[in-house]
This record gives sequence, structure tokens and C-alpha cells, in this order.
Amino acid sequence: MAKINDNYLKLPGAYLFSTVARKAEEFAAAHPDRELIKMSIGDVTKPLAPAVIKAMKAAADEMGTAEGFHGYGPEQGYDFLRSKIAECDYKSRGIDIDISEIFVSDGAKSDCGNIGDIFSVDNKVAVCDPVYPVYVDTNAMAGRAGDYVGEHWTNLYYMPCTEENGFMPELPKEKVDIIYLCFPNNPTGVAATREQLKPWVEYAKENGAVILYDSAYEAFITNPDVPHSIYEIEGAKEVAIEFRSFSKTAGFTGTRCAYTVVPHTLKIDGTELNSLWNRRQCTKFNGVPYVIQRAAEAVYSEDGRRETKAAIAYYLENAKIIRAALTEAGLTVYGGENAPYIWAKTPDGLKSWEFFDKILDEAGVVTTPGSGFGPSGEGFVRLTAFSTKENTIKAMEKIKAIL
Amino acid sequence: MAKINDNYLKLPGAYLFSTVARKAEEFAAAHPDRELIKMSIGDVTKPLAPAVIKAMKAAADEMGTAEGFHGYGPEQGYDFLRSKIAECDYKSRGIDIDISEIFVSDGAKSDCGNIGDIFSVDNKVAVCDPVYPVYVDTNAMAGRAGDYVGEHWTNLYYMPCTEENGFMPELPKEKVDIIYLCFPNNPTGVAATREQLKPWVEYAKENGAVILYDSAYEAFITNPDVPHSIYEIEGAKEVAIEFRSFSKTAGFTGTRCAYTVVPHTLKIDGTELNSLWNRRQCTKFNGVPYVIQRAAEAVYSEDGRRETKAAIAYYLENAKIIRAALTEAGLTVYGGENAPYIWAKTPDGLKSWEFFDKILDEAGVVTTPGSGFGPSGEGFVRLTAFSTKENTIKAMEKIKAIL
Repeated sequence: MAKINDNYLKLPGAYLFSTVARKAEEFAAAHPDRELIKMSIGDVTKPLAPAVIKAMKAAADEMGTAEGFHGYGPEQGYDFLRSKIAECDYKSRGIDIDISEIFVSDGAKSDCGNIGDIFSVDNKVAVCDPVYPVYVDTNAMAGRAGDYVGEHWTNLYYMPCTEENGFMPELPKEKVDIIYLCFPNNPTGVAATREQLKPWVEYAKENGAVILYDSAYEAFITNPDVPHSIYEIEGAKEVAIEFRSFSKTAGFTGTRCAYTVVPHTLKIDGTELNSLWNRRQCTKFNGVPYVIQRAAEAVYSEDGRRETKAAIAYYLENAKIIRAALTEAGLTVYGGENAPYIWAKTPDGLKSWEFFDKILDEAGVVTTPGSGFGPSGEGFVRLTAFSTKENTIKAMEKIKAIL
Repeated sequence: MAKINDNYLKLPGAYLFSTVARKAEEFAAAHPDRELIKMSIGDVTKPLAPAVIKAMKAAADEMGTAEGFHGYGPEQGYDFLRSKIAECDYKSRGIDIDISEIFVSDGAKSDCGNIGDIFSVDNKVAVCDPVYPVYVDTNAMAGRAGDYVGEHWTNLYYMPCTEENGFMPELPKEKVDIIYLCFPNNPTGVAATREQLKPWVEYAKENGAVILYDSAYEAFITNPDVPHSIYEIEGAKEVAIEFRSFSKTAGFTGTRCAYTVVPHTLKIDGTELNSLWNRRQCTKFNGVPYVIQRAAEAVYSEDGRRETKAAIAYYLENAKIIRAALTEAGLTVYGGENAPYIWAKTPDGLKSWEFFDKILDEAGVVTTPGSGFGPSGEGFVRLTAFSTKENTIKAMEKIKAIL
């Protein structure tokens, strides 16, 4: 008889964002007359840049002609896009990444999840707490996390990110094999400086660990001391895989394009992880739509850069508004300066869900409870800067009025 | 120290299609004056249908407006597309599939590969021989195939498809847990009738096995006795997962859209595989681009149907030309009547690669050696109907001239 992967049965049932959505729906149903503003989800709201639309439509027209039609493309992505990535995202920052080290994909979420395929089940995995749930759940599905007991998986190594350590995890006190890092961070919105990242690369080198570095939010970095890529740190090309995305950089959450960098110099027992990931992608993936890759290429054009940068500036302005308003309301806030996320401490020792309920019930504003990202997120809520400026201002006024 | 998934190291190095491509390139380099016609790859050549282009561009325009912008969509696909699939691909054939049983994805290759995530490593897997390599390789990567010894994986159960059995596999003589079936078949081009499929559904029911049914080529079916879906067989909704694709149906190989059906009635030990696959997709996938889903929806419009059916008819005409020419040349041919693939027996007892080389060297035509799809493919070559009519005719004249 067929057997299922019973690691799936160990996953806790209620998903954070679905619970948040349900509560918001219940509020809307109970109060049809009251306005509801969502400051909860990490989804962009501004339209795609005109340069991107133009490129996408031109590519669609190409696909309608015998000469311009594109069938199966390279699983790794077209060179026209990979060369732009190598040039604009890396070479321009003094980092030498070959296009054969770049794998274009349909999303950083897919890659963060699928990357586990190339690793043995027998690896000790370290994750931050609080953390983006995908890192944890995908390892649990693969059988790498053990059992879910209390609020922890028995085989994961948790690295608390708290007010005390400035939301910067401390180096593991025991040997770990795989380390997930995300900077600028989701959910705390805090970014690591070059100096703060260096010890991680050293740790990985000394312990033969691999760092899985999620820099999906690098476009929001404003501080020159904060690296956009982990490869800005010497030696990182020997220990780290980097995930990048057009989702937040260019509003591609519904357009789906990302990429993962696996340097040739990253080896385990002489085996290049690049060749394993290449094999994985060639066998289980068939590339990103041609029209989408042309759209992503346009992000690097002169118009595309100007237009997408304007959208990022817009969201960062929202983040500023949120920070200022919540501070004025007496809350302690973190993040939002190099990231689209603001991590706000709950007042009066309220639990995350208690403060979530208070803001929802009294102000009609939806946030995300920090405890949903892990036990160390207790006592915080996350707000995002992705709403419209108008709604952001309105939501802040409503929150200020109840605090 | 981090450990890799060493199942990857067991995979045989040279991939069939890359070897074919290399030989073709060598021929072209050695004979720059001679024409080279590829009848080898399973990739479409006709442009996207005008209705599809129109929908894609309209969706791109939407994405450029504040009101029409779409961020993250449902991981399972938009209901506008899922309802069209349920209505046109199933209900129209008397099959009741709920939209919650349909998962839109970026490709049948991705789904055929990723579906393994929800099954235990401890399952006995049966595959046809010859076979689409993705079924085998993805199971090998997951550790379900054992070791590669000779031309076989030690833990897989192979079902030979030979001239003697009309390329229809026989029911396993031992208990197997997961069975991959692909009809119309790649590479043999042979299709199973309803009567031929029935015993498989019965076997699966009796043995608690799950059938993974790849019907990526169903649009090519011309024989009314050949089912387009395994769910046309009574009881199949309790034992089978079905993979479908717009790749061949609507020329989407470079546009990337497919779907997988996991009925709620398919359960193992009381657990719905639908809920496992849903969890897998929600955790490791973020949906198909909005513009691509709108393009796929247009395949079901009146214009879209007419235009895509015309393309299928064009390819089937090519298949007819190939069948007639090779038969005239004295070869025994199979397939090509309900599929875009023609499975031709080599003359004079030639090995697959010997005949491949002969046709390449003497006629300048690229085929695919049958032995590359598995040991039982020895003594055959595969030709595809996806070239232009002009090139198909020319290639057949060249082959006839050397036989």
C-alpha cells in the first residue's frame, strides 16, 4: 500500500496568515459599516512599472510570430536576464558572479523550499526565532525538523532574535550544518551590517556549514553599512547560497520571478552544490515564462530602474510614517529603515494576539502578531509598509487614537 | 559539516537529450554546408494563438493600473482558470471535478517531480520501460530508486513496453505502491483505451496503490475509445492523480502553465492526498503569474479553442506524413495517431544509437534513440511531429533516400 510522507502530519494545523485573514473577515462581517485597513500582509500594492509592462507586451507579441516564438527555454533562465543580474546586482558592487552561478526561478519561496532537495535529511538546521515560516515548514516536511513539541521542533536549532540582542542572532553554541539568515529581516525589519555578517561567514567556514541567505528585501536598504549581498563579505562565496527576488524589488509578487545564486566555489566533500542545484532544476523545473523573463530584464533598463526605485521610495516613506506615528503613540518600534517591515513592541506587556485583537477591534487595523513567527516574537506585532500612503496615514491616525 | 543528498551522486551522468544535442552540434560543425533538421525534441514550434496573446497583453495592461494590479494570487491558481478547467476539461466529458481538486502550476514536469514530496521514501515505484526520464530521476533523487546498476535502478519496478505487448505495460506481478502511467505515451506515441486502463484502476484499488497519470498529450487523441482523462474510468478518483499541461495543448512550452488534479476521494489511511498536496504547494510555491493564467483561460474561449485545435491538427498532419514516409521506406512504425510521437523500429536489427547515427550522418536528420528512454527502447528511435510541415516533408524525403 502506498505510504504518505508522514512528516506532513506533524505540521501544526493553523497557519498564521490564514488565522489573521479569518479574524479580519470576521471583523468585517460583524462591522460592515466600519473601515478595515490591512497593514498585515507582505504584498505590494503599486502597479508594475511602465517599462516592465512594455517589455512584457512586446514579448507577448513576439510569442505570436513564427520567428519570435519561444518554446522551452533554458531551465536556468535566459542569458539575457542572467547577464543583467550578474552585471547590475553583483558586478556593480564589486562582486564577481558568473552567469552559470545564477538560476532564475518562479520565486524565492519556491527556491527556499526546494533547496532542501540537495541536502541530506541528516543535517542540523539553524533558524532565527522569529522567522519566515517557510524555512521551518519545508525542513519539517523533509523530516529534518524532528517533532513539534510545545512551540518548537525538536531537531531545529533556534536562534532567538530579541530586543536584548538587537534582533541579531548569536552564533550557534553547538555545531550546526545549515543556517538560514534573512537580512533585511522578515519579520523584524532589522538589517545586518557587514561587520555583523562577517562572523557568520567565519563560523560557516570553520564548521563546514552552509548559509542560506535570503536577501529578498535588499532593495529597501538605505544604510551604506548594510550589504545588499552576503557575497560582499569575504569568503562568503565558499559557504553561502543567496536568494533574491523581483517580488519586492519590482512589485513582481503576482508576476513571479526570482533567482538563486550558487557559487561554484561552494563545495561539500568536493561536490559543487551548483551542479546539484542545476541537476535539481533541470529535472524538476522547466524555467520561467519567456515573457516574464523579458519583463524582469526591463527592471534593469534606465526607465525600469527609475520607476521601480520610485515605488521603493514610496514604501519607505510609508515605513517612516508608521515609525513616526507609533513612536508618537508611545510604542517602541524597530525596523522600517532598511526594510518594509516595522516590528512594534506591544504596550503594557500585552501578548501579541491581545494587541492584534485590540488594534483590530478598536482601530479596524489588521497587523500580524509577532508570536506567529516564533516564540521570541511574543510581545510584538509586525506592520508592513506596502499599503497606499493614504491608508497608511489613516491607519496610523486610528491606532494613535486608541493608544 | 553540511551533508548533501548523496542520492544525486548515483544519477548517471550523461543526459539523453544533451548527448543528442551534442551529436547534432558536432554534425553541424563538421558539415557547415549541410542542412540539419531536428525531429528529436518534444517542443512545439507554432506561435501562441492570437486569442492567448490578446488575453496576455490585456492582463499586462491591467497589471499597470492601481485597480487592475494583482499581487500574490492563490497558490492553487485563480478560480477563473480553475473553473474553466473543471467545466471544459472534465464536466464536458461527464467527469465531476471540483475546483478545489485542481492545482494550477508552472508545468507538468514540476508537478510530476514535486509530487514525490508527499509520499514516503518507503514506497515501491513502478515505471514503464521506455519512460519519460523525469519519473525515474526524481524518484532516484528522493532515494526511492535504490542504486543504478547496469541500466536499471535496483528498487524500481520496471514494466517493459514492447512490440510484443503492443507497448502496453502488463500489471505488476509483485505489489507496487506508486505507478506512473503516461497516455498518450511519451516516447512510444501509443494510447491506452478505456478497456486497457480499467485493470490498472482495479489493481490500484486492490493493492492500495496510487496511479500518477500523465495525460500531457491528451489534446492529440483522435480515437473515441481513448480516454482523455483517467477519471473516465470508474473508481479512478479514488486511486489516481492526473497531470495536465497547456504545453502541448496550446503551445505553452515557453509560457509555462499546467495543472494537477488530486481528488478528495483519494486517501491513504484516511488522509486526503489533496490536503497534503495543498500544503506542499502553499509552502513551496507561490502560484503562476497572473498574466499567464489569463492567457491559459483564453485557451478555453471560442477563438482560443479554434486556434489551438488548428495547431494540434497541423502537428497531427505532420505525424501522418512521418508515418506514411517511414512505412513507405520499409520501417515498422507505431504511435503518431493519438500522439505527437512516432516510435520507429530500426531496420536490420540496428541498435538505437547506430540508427540515430546513420540518419544523422547520411540524412542530416536528428531523432532520439529509443534506448535513451530505457533498455526496452533499444531497437527504436523516436521522431516528433512538432517541426514545421515543410521541414517534416524534407526530413522524410532525406530519410527515404538513404533507406
